[in-house]
Amino acid sequence: MLAETLASISAVDESPSGPVQARLDSLTKPPGSLGRLESLVLELSGMSGETLPTVTPPGVIVFAADHGVAEEGVSAFPQEVTAQMVANFVGGGAAINVFARQIGARLEVIDVGVKGDVEGAGVVHDKVRRGTANVAREDAMSLAEAERAIEVGIHAAERSHAAGCRCLIVGEMGIANTTASSALLAALSGQPVSRLVGQGTGIAPAQLAHKAEVIANALAARRADSSQPLELLAKLGGLEIAAMAGAYLGAAARRMPILVDGFIATVAALLACRLAPELRGYLLFAHRSCEPGHDIALELLEARPLLDLQLRLGEGTGAALAFPLLEAACRMLAEMATFDSAGVADGGSTA
Amino acid sequence: MLAETLASISAVDESPSGPVQARLDSLTKPPGSLGRLESLVLELSGMSGETLPTVTPPGVIVFAADHGVAEEGVSAFPQEVTAQMVANFVGGGAAINVFARQIGARLEVIDVGVKGDVEGAGVVHDKVRRGTANVAREDAMSLAEAERAIEVGIHAAERSHAAGCRCLIVGEMGIANTTASSALLAALSGQPVSRLVGQGTGIAPAQLAHKAEVIANALAARRADSSQPLELLAKLGGLEIAAMAGAYLGAAARRMPILVDGFIATVAALLACRLAPELRGYLLFAHRSCEPGHDIALELLEARPLLDLQLRLGEGTGAALAFPLLEAACRMLAEMATFDSAGVADGGSTA
Repeated sequence: MLAETLASISAVDESPSGPVQARLDSLTKPPGSLGRLESLVLELSGMSGETLPTVTPPGVIVFAADHGVAEEGVSAFPQEVTAQMVANFVGGGAAINVFARQIGARLEVIDVGVKGDVEGAGVVHDKVRRGTANVAREDAMSLAEAERAIEVGIHAAERSHAAGCRCLIVGEMGIANTTASSALLAALSGQPVSRLVGQGTGIAPAQLAHKAEVIANALAARRADSSQPLELLAKLGGLEIAAMAGAYLGAAARRMPILVDGFIATVAALLACRLAPELRGYLLFAHRSCEPGHDIALELLEARPLLDLQLRLGEGTGAALAFPLLEAACRMLAEMATFDSAGVADGGSTA
Repeated sequence: MLAETLASISAVDESPSGPVQARLDSLTKPPGSLGRLESLVLELSGMSGETLPTVTPPGVIVFAADHGVAEEGVSAFPQEVTAQMVANFVGGGAAINVFARQIGARLEVIDVGVKGDVEGAGVVHDKVRRGTANVAREDAMSLAEAERAIEVGIHAAERSHAAGCRCLIVGEMGIANTTASSALLAALSGQPVSRLVGQGTGIAPAQLAHKAEVIANALAARRADSSQPLELLAKLGGLEIAAMAGAYLGAAARRMPILVDGFIATVAALLACRLAPELRGYLLFAHRSCEPGHDIALELLEARPLLDLQLRLGEGTGAALAFPLLEAACRMLAEMATFDSAGVADGGSTA
């Protein structure tokens, strides 16, 4: 199934760009004056292949999973918080709930690997295993488990698409997942851990040094081959990171635009692009977060995020906050009058 | 009436900031992890004096007026476009119409000084004069006219407030109004015209040099006293710029948060702050535009805009695009669960 999905991701469609550019230049505004919004709608048209792309309603998928490495004391929060936050998502009280409501999104919360039992009808139960193993001591998961977690993500994207969503936002919850993401990014980028490790949800400076040491030791012990993305994922982990990568791949296979959230989401995107380089054409980047590794991951993807609001929450929140800009870009193209239709003189003769 | 409004603008209220900060830290997210959104809601609470501020519904006011200096060939568009665009606003086909609909705003279009006749029930007719005089030859308007244009803005803000709007966005339409704004900014900042003049709606490089020369000559000929904001406005002009300044003052007098748009809107804000320094506390800045003078005006106001999307359209569009961030900040505070209410362990013991 993964192989099938990878094979079905095709390059973005350049054919709408001519008509879209012509329409942009006919709208009642100086050519190019809506800046980044104009390039956004051009990109969106290439993803969906439509001359009037649309991104509403958006789908938000939040994957939750635990990390064995949490026992090394790398997070400001205890591991139980993962399951507690899943309950909070179901109750509608987390930040992503608030912002998903604001943008009219379909929200799905998926347990892809929470350690404890997560109850309630509001959660999709797709647990691959009860948290990863502690990467300080052993591989996070097996290759087969990594592949299953990716497939959980592919299925989730399929459900969003089938429900009519026209743009995908993927979030995560997992105590210690900036540790896993930083390890993956160090392997993928070849950059030293010290350059990319960050405070995550807010650890103190002394704990940060410890976190960097845990990551560096895990990298040395796991000896993952950076040219093998699946192996990297299995060894360094993140069931929710694997599922995020899968959701991106599943969305791109269905020509759905993807609005990538923060650090963890961007590392998952980087990893997924190593599996399917054509995926890159379906990715838009929501924001630049506080996590130092985010800049490195964004640069490797040649990504220019829309917002810079010093966010460091995850859950998909930054992407939900940036979403109205995508909606505005689509509405501009679809709803604005043209110079002709509005009887406005254009600047052609004097510009 | 202007004097009365100036006198009724009081400092922002610091009293809600303690309770708001305490609530922010009790919400189910790492403290500070929503970055700029958290500081935004603190600022909004100070403006309205409420511990749960709200910005919906927003009001958008667009002031239209003509500029005599257009006859010097400083714009990419002919002067008739001002009136034609007013008709487009009434018809709902301009960019600001699209974005105002998206954010559920009350939109009002006001003719404060269009040269020709503007017809239709959809426009508020508050014409102070038929365009300004050409500042290359004479003062743009009289002091009395400048004051009347400011009062048009104060009344407009009052109507928005009376209609229930909780946040004000002020836009403009006026061919050649970056010329007037650049002249005002040069006088207010003391910076050389060459540093702050820009392409406006999109003039060619040769025309840009001509525009700079027209502005420099007008500044020399008008000899405006930069310590006298009303006199500056009268001499260097902009009926819509005066009205924008008035709308800001009227909103601040009613403790309404103001989301400032681009270059022209920021120059109007700078000018209004010279009339009433307490106004600054009610201003939030939406975006950094392409116009080089915008950076200078933002710096003088110690403003850090929310977006940077290479916009250069005006009409209030950049502010309408940034508005969902303000709404998200308010909803976060009002709707998110607390650690207690959601039964989530906080990171207090380990952070």
